[in-house]
Amino acid sequence: MSHAGEFALIERYFARPTPSAVLGPGDDCALLQPSPGMQLAVTTDMLVAGTHFFPDTDPFNLGWKALAVNVSDLAAMGAKPRWATLAGALPTVDEEWVAKFAEGFFACAAAYGVDIVGGDTTRGPLNLCITAFSEVAPGQALRRDGAKVGDLIYVSGRPGLASLGLAHLQGKVELPEPWRRLCQIALEKPRPRVALGLRLIGIASAAIDVSDGLLADLGHIAKRSALSAAVQLVQLPHLPKGQQHNDIPRALALDCQLAGGDDYELCFTVPPAHNQQIAAIATELELPLWCIGQMTAGIAGEVAVFDPDGQPIVFDHHGYDHFA
Amino acid sequence: MSHAGEFALIERYFARPTPSAVLGPGDDCALLQPSPGMQLAVTTDMLVAGTHFFPDTDPFNLGWKALAVNVSDLAAMGAKPRWATLAGALPTVDEEWVAKFAEGFFACAAAYGVDIVGGDTTRGPLNLCITAFSEVAPGQALRRDGAKVGDLIYVSGRPGLASLGLAHLQGKVELPEPWRRLCQIALEKPRPRVALGLRLIGIASAAIDVSDGLLADLGHIAKRSALSAAVQLVQLPHLPKGQQHNDIPRALALDCQLAGGDDYELCFTVPPAHNQQIAAIATELELPLWCIGQMTAGIAGEVAVFDPDGQPIVFDHHGYDHFA
Repeated sequence: MSHAGEFALIERYFARPTPSAVLGPGDDCALLQPSPGMQLAVTTDMLVAGTHFFPDTDPFNLGWKALAVNVSDLAAMGAKPRWATLAGALPTVDEEWVAKFAEGFFACAAAYGVDIVGGDTTRGPLNLCITAFSEVAPGQALRRDGAKVGDLIYVSGRPGLASLGLAHLQGKVELPEPWRRLCQIALEKPRPRVALGLRLIGIASAAIDVSDGLLADLGHIAKRSALSAAVQLVQLPHLPKGQQHNDIPRALALDCQLAGGDDYELCFTVPPAHNQQIAAIATELELPLWCIGQMTAGIAGEVAVFDPDGQPIVFDHHGYDHFA
Repeated sequence: MSHAGEFALIERYFARPTPSAVLGPGDDCALLQPSPGMQLAVTTDMLVAGTHFFPDTDPFNLGWKALAVNVSDLAAMGAKPRWATLAGALPTVDEEWVAKFAEGFFACAAAYGVDIVGGDTTRGPLNLCITAFSEVAPGQALRRDGAKVGDLIYVSGRPGLASLGLAHLQGKVELPEPWRRLCQIALEKPRPRVALGLRLIGIASAAIDVSDGLLADLGHIAKRSALSAAVQLVQLPHLPKGQQHNDIPRALALDCQLAGGDDYELCFTVPPAHNQQIAAIATELELPLWCIGQMTAGIAGEVAVFDPDGQPIVFDHHGYDHFA
C-alpha cells in the first residue's frame, strides 16, 4: 500500500459524523460552537506504550481506555463531555489493529456522548494523546481547591481493583472469580464517573479522579485547598479475599487501595450540611459512595491514614509516578 | 533527585500565569470562558523526535516550533489564538533542556498571545503534542472548502525556504549568506501568519497553511472545494541562487518550492472581486503575497503546474508523508 494509502486508511477509520460540531475532521481546525454562557473544561492526557499500557494490549480496550481517562478528568470537574481530538504516533500501520482501536475508541465516545472533531497521525513509537472538552456553568465546576475544614471525604466504587488486576496480570497474586474478571474490567475498560460528577455539582466542595492512587490524588485536593486530610482505613471498601491458601497479602491489598493508580473513581469532599444527599445519590446511581475521612487543618497537602485504634499508619508509597 | 522532584521541576517550568483562563494548570481540567457568540477553532499536532525534528534540535527552537505549527493551523482559519495545552513524553528529565524548551515555547506563546492552560508529562520516547484554541465569529472562518471556479490562488512569503534549509543541514546543497540564515530561520523558528489570516476574513474564499508542501496543501483546498487548481510556475517567488559554481540544482529548487514542507506560509484563494484588496494587505503587513494560479473546474483535488510555455510539468513528489 502506498504511503498516501496508509493515511487514507487511518482517516477512514476516524472520520465519522460529528453532529455536535460546526466543522469536524479534515480542515486546519475543527470548529465548535460553545453553548451560550457556558465555560469550557479542557484536559489533555498522553498515553505511551510501555509506560501506561503493555504494547500488546488489546486494541479495542486501549481505544476505550485512551478516551476514558480523559473523560474521567471531565467527570471530576462535574462537566458534561462534548468533544475530543486524538493525536497518535504509530510505528507501523496495521489495519486490523487500527480498526479495533477505532472500534473501542468510538464505543467509549458513543457511551459518553463525545464527538471526535479532529486529530493528527504520524509515524513514531506508539503514543496516544487525547484532548477532551466539556461544558460547565460558570462557578459550578468541581475544582480541587474548594475543600473546607470538617468536610467529609468520599470515594466512589472500590479503589484498588485496577491495580489488583495489574498485580494478577503480573503474577503477583492469583485472584478468584468473580474478582479476577471485575479487576480486569476495572483495569482495561474503566467507566468514568460522569453521572456522579454531574450530580455532585452544588453538593461537593472539591473533587478529583483517582488516576494516580487514592492518597496521592486526595493529597492534591488537600494541597490545593491548603488543608490536611485524615483517612480512616477501616472505612475503605474491602478488596477481595484470595482463594483458600491464596489470600491476598495485606501489604499488597493496602498498596492497591491507597496507592493503586488507574481506578478512575471520584474522590470528593462534602460539607457536613450536604452529607444527607450523598446516600440518595448512591442509590440513584447504583454506585457505592464511601465516607473515608475528613478534611482537617494542618500541613497543606498532608494525608494521614489511621487504623481502627486511631493510630496513624506509616505508608510510603504515595501514588504512581510516570518517571518511576 | 526524587521522582516527585522531577515532576515538580517540570511543573515549575510550565505553570505560568494564565490571565485569559478562568482556571489554569493544576486541576483535572483547565476552565475557559469563550467570548459570547464566538466559535472555537481547535487543532492538535503531534511532533515526534526523528520524524519531525532531529533529536538534538536546539530545545529553544523546538519549543518555539512545537507551538508555532499549531498556531499556524489557527492562522489558516483566520482565527485569533487564545489558549493551548502541551502534553509531552520525555525519555529522561534534563533540567537544562526543559528550561530551554520552556523558554522557546513561552516565547512563541507570548508572541502570539496564547495562554498555556494545561498539560501532561510522562516518560517515553520524545514526543510533543499540542492542542491549540482560537476564537472566530460564526461563519467567518477560512475553511478549505470555500474556493470557487476562477478564484485566484495566492501564497505568502517564499515557500521552499524551510526545506532548502533542511537540504543545507543534510549537506545536499551549500547556501550562501544571507540565504543560509534565512532558510535556517524558516526551518527552525517559523512565524505563523496570524495577522494575515485575520486580515483575510471576508476576503479569501479558502485557506490552508503550507505544512506538507505547496502542491499537497493546495490539493487539499482543491479536493475539499471539489475543484482543480492550475499553478503557473513562473509566478512562484524565486528561491536563492547558490554561490558561484554552486548553484542550487533546478530539481532541488523545484522540489523545495512545490513539495517542501514546514513553511507555514498561507495558501489561499481569492474571488476576482476581492483581488484589489490583496496588494494593500501585502503592503500593510510588509509580507509578499504572490498570485500563483487559479482554481478551475476539473477533477476534484487535482493540481496542475504549468511552465512559461503553458506546458504542464510532471511532478511526482506530492508533499511530505509522515509514513514515508
